[in-house]
Amino acid sequence: MSTCIPVVENILSANDRLAAENRAIFDKAGVFAINLMASPGAGKTSLVERTVEGLAGRLRLGVIEGDLASSLDADRAAAAGAAAVQINTGGECHLDAVMLHAALPQLDLKSLDLLIVENVGNLVCPTSFKLGVHCNILIASTPEGDDKPYKYPGSYRGIDALVINKIDLLPYVDFDMQNFRRGVEMLNPGVMTFPLSCRTGEGLDAWLDWLAAQVKNRA
Amino acid sequence: MSTCIPVVENILSANDRLAAENRAIFDKAGVFAINLMASPGAGKTSLVERTVEGLAGRLRLGVIEGDLASSLDADRAAAAGAAAVQINTGGECHLDAVMLHAALPQLDLKSLDLLIVENVGNLVCPTSFKLGVHCNILIASTPEGDDKPYKYPGSYRGIDALVINKIDLLPYVDFDMQNFRRGVEMLNPGVMTFPLSCRTGEGLDAWLDWLAAQVKNRA
Repeated sequence: MSTCIPVVENILSANDRLAAENRAIFDKAGVFAINLMASPGAGKTSLVERTVEGLAGRLRLGVIEGDLASSLDADRAAAAGAAAVQINTGGECHLDAVMLHAALPQLDLKSLDLLIVENVGNLVCPTSFKLGVHCNILIASTPEGDDKPYKYPGSYRGIDALVINKIDLLPYVDFDMQNFRRGVEMLNPGVMTFPLSCRTGEGLDAWLDWLAAQVKNRA
Repeated sequence: MSTCIPVVENILSANDRLAAENRAIFDKAGVFAINLMASPGAGKTSLVERTVEGLAGRLRLGVIEGDLASSLDADRAAAAGAAAVQINTGGECHLDAVMLHAALPQLDLKSLDLLIVENVGNLVCPTSFKLGVHCNILIASTPEGDDKPYKYPGSYRGIDALVINKIDLLPYVDFDMQNFRRGVEMLNPGVMTFPLSCRTGEGLDAWLDWLAAQVKNRA
């Protein structure tokens, strides 16, 4: 089984090369690209919907949805008003730069300000595969529990911002915000954090304003 | 990248061979082994705790906990009263038969009736790696949403029983039980299903009785 190691390394470096190409494409088109990662059901697609609705009129948005199967998420993003493309990974547990590269021609990137890439629901594998985006964002979710930074440290280390979704459920779940934040701080000191509820809308404005500012700063 | 395919196949068949060895070890020791799979935070460790407490005096239980990092889960299982071993996968997104095989000598299997293996929190990868257990169980969770069977079909296809955890949150989340069950039924018709709440205890008795019966039937 040791023969697998160089093969995996080769795949990763091929992936990194294509991630750099993706970045060059984004920069040439003048589009700011973000990668949303989370466990299944943490609220990635709900955040996409709220972000598309909330930035309508301020920014032109495109969405690329990564899933093992179905076009449910792209349908939701399109219904919210974005140009949306679905990638079905056919069982692969993450998006990689190759899949993203293949999907890019389906969008008119020059007509967009912000491209949201929604990764496969998985708190482990997506962090190992660069996509070429400008910003990696993790969504945690209160019903998942406050121990996740301790148990999935890799997914908290490499991110540029953290969304804590489903804060409307805090009265009904056992989630110790202090313990959670202590774990995050150990792994990623000072990371920008947005507690919010996609369901009630609480906290969304801070997220939308920050994201819009990121896009403006890179333009 | 095509060179990866035979390597992956070789790893899987080596895994299958060791899974068969694990099964032989379980059968020789007279222990019934189950594999709990779920997304991060769906309630695998909570179900382990409730099961250890609920079957105390009826069955002798051991627990093997799989995590990327930390011994939080084994500590919880031990506190609930089980013989508990922690496997840290060091970043691997699933347990495999090799890791399980290496952990087995740490438990006195002959002194156990039921061994619960808690897999890494991941709704994609663990289904691809047989462990040699007698029974594969998936835990869904109501705040994850009712679309998960449609988006992660592989994890619903290969299971012997399904637990729907966190039914106490049904009034506070958007979870259409009919849509969820329709998706499950398409993938795994008639699969045994246990809606319950590890937090309130509702529905736990049906799960415990069914599990105890499985152990008894195999003895």
